Amino acid sequence: MDERAALALLADELEYAGDDAAVVDDLVVTTDMLHETTDFPAGTTRYTAGWRAVGASLSDVAAMGAEAVVAVAAYAAPEFDGEDLLAFVRGARDVCDLVGADYVGGDLDGHDEFTVTTTAIGRLENDPVPRSGATRGDLLCVTGTLGRSAAALEYFALAQDGGGGGDEGKDEGKDENNNERANELFQFEPRIEAGRALAPHATAMMDSSDGLARSLHQLGEASGCGFEVDASHVPIAESLRDVTETADEALERATTFGEDFELVVTIPEGALEAVRKATPVPISVLGSVVPHEDGITMDGEPLPDRGFTHG
Amino acid sequence: MDERAALALLADELEYAGDDAAVVDDLVVTTDMLHETTDFPAGTTRYTAGWRAVGASLSDVAAMGAEAVVAVAAYAAPEFDGEDLLAFVRGARDVCDLVGADYVGGDLDGHDEFTVTTTAIGRLENDPVPRSGATRGDLLCVTGTLGRSAAALEYFALAQDGGGGGDEGKDEGKDENNNERANELFQFEPRIEAGRALAPHATAMMDSSDGLARSLHQLGEASGCGFEVDASHVPIAESLRDVTETADEALERATTFGEDFELVVTIPEGALEAVRKATPVPISVLGSVVPHEDGITMDGEPLPDRGFTHG
Repeated sequence: MDERAALALLADELEYAGDDAAVVDDLVVTTDMLHETTDFPAGTTRYTAGWRAVGASLSDVAAMGAEAVVAVAAYAAPEFDGEDLLAFVRGARDVCDLVGADYVGGDLDGHDEFTVTTTAIGRLENDPVPRSGATRGDLLCVTGTLGRSAAALEYFALAQDGGGGGDEGKDEGKDENNNERANELFQFEPRIEAGRALAPHATAMMDSSDGLARSLHQLGEASGCGFEVDASHVPIAESLRDVTETADEALERATTFGEDFELVVTIPEGALEAVRKATPVPISVLGSVVPHEDGITMDGEPLPDRGFTHG
Repeated sequence: MDERAALALLADELEYAGDDAAVVDDLVVTTDMLHETTDFPAGTTRYTAGWRAVGASLSDVAAMGAEAVVAVAAYAAPEFDGEDLLAFVRGARDVCDLVGADYVGGDLDGHDEFTVTTTAIGRLENDPVPRSGATRGDLLCVTGTLGRSAAALEYFALAQDGGGGGDEGKDEGKDENNNERANELFQFEPRIEAGRALAPHATAMMDSSDGLARSLHQLGEASGCGFEVDASHVPIAESLRDVTETADEALERATTFGEDFELVVTIPEGALEAVRKATPVPISVLGSVVPHEDGITMDGEPLPDRGFTHG
């Protein structure tokens, strides 16, 4: 049984399954486990790992339209290196500070693989924004840009491969720069503020952690709708353009790679101006909500359900 | 660096470190990672694992004197067996139901070892009960009995060893009974209701998950006090007496084994009657709070800081 089949099985048992975070009273709660081999490429610093792991959970809180209150992490590693541990905690705390949440530590644990579970808790002022409310005619929008994480992976790979040939000292410096750039791209701002600004208008929302294409399939399934996307409106990150050779390649990676933690959201057409005024990051209009039978298309072609499958 | 040294290092970084759960506004939050090899003996059913993992986090909420609101779990296993998964979820949900919390699922994840991280969130009506408020002359009390988990381990071991010699069929039946008994003992009631009843009176409180002896050392360090314990007042579980040969052995296991998730609490002497009336489980008075320089003693002998070190 794969993860999606298992989730489907549990949907019958757990009434809260199937959104970015669970809602209980005015609280939203979300938890995620990450592993070194699947989630932290070689070269990821512990500071970046702390930032990213906690940031991913905060992004789920953002996708519900909630305020971020607190995050915890359970940190497991083969040994507790003081510097590693402090770097992780500082990364976790810095991303929390950025969105006004408290990072309060958690559990330490011995384990053969570096493994982190983060949990974030948010508080709702309005109703939570579900995945299921997208309505025909709504605008399909996304915050920020897509492709930063895909670009980061390229820089991690470059840093690991090394220069090859030429002056060794120079190549080492280059590797270090590439690794630094990768870590920088891997740190992202969870869209808490944007989520709260979007919440009063949004009919459906989720984060783009599985990639835009997969997110649209998930929103489409939850809302019983299709989407038409204009490829020229997909906001491709500059950093991704820098590491891809063609515009098609960049578009492909921007739509399917995922791990960008932007918000994918549907809003009534009339709300766009208000949303843009209230939201601190750029909002791109990718297209619109269409009937379910029209499917999910980009420039008239089916956009398949491909994307990042979280390990 | 071991876990305790690492925790000490982090105490400077995290103002919330060092209690059973962190407090943010009126919320308490706690997270724990558990692994098959260190936390779930062979024979532990997934139902029991779900119960126990979530129960351990709920116990931390109880130790703060808070109401239990919601729990989540991240569940990682080499493969997703539908029956295993449902059993886990049912165990998790049943222990939540028992204390009035919502179990809302969480994350599924592939991993080489069965690993679970649970997070529980509680809400405070009063101030949280810290570990640091024990005052000279206070009574030292514990809820329920100690030794159920130690007894469970004996039954697990018996079931695994098999009968040895004699009729095989009969021994298999015996193994099954021992395993069932072990699982039953491994399921415990988190002391949420007791914690809330104790909270208005308690000067210091924590759960006994590291064993009574270690808990007293931790409370003593946090409160700057010592304790004198009367061995004859330690409430030893019947199930532990059944599997130990001498009273001394039973006492030793009851004070050092841990994993029982009872509440260790100090209260002013005058509050005992009110506490006993309000608390739904028996409260044993083990002894009293003494000056720090008198140390931690049982029947006049030093009670060393030995106990369960969580992996």
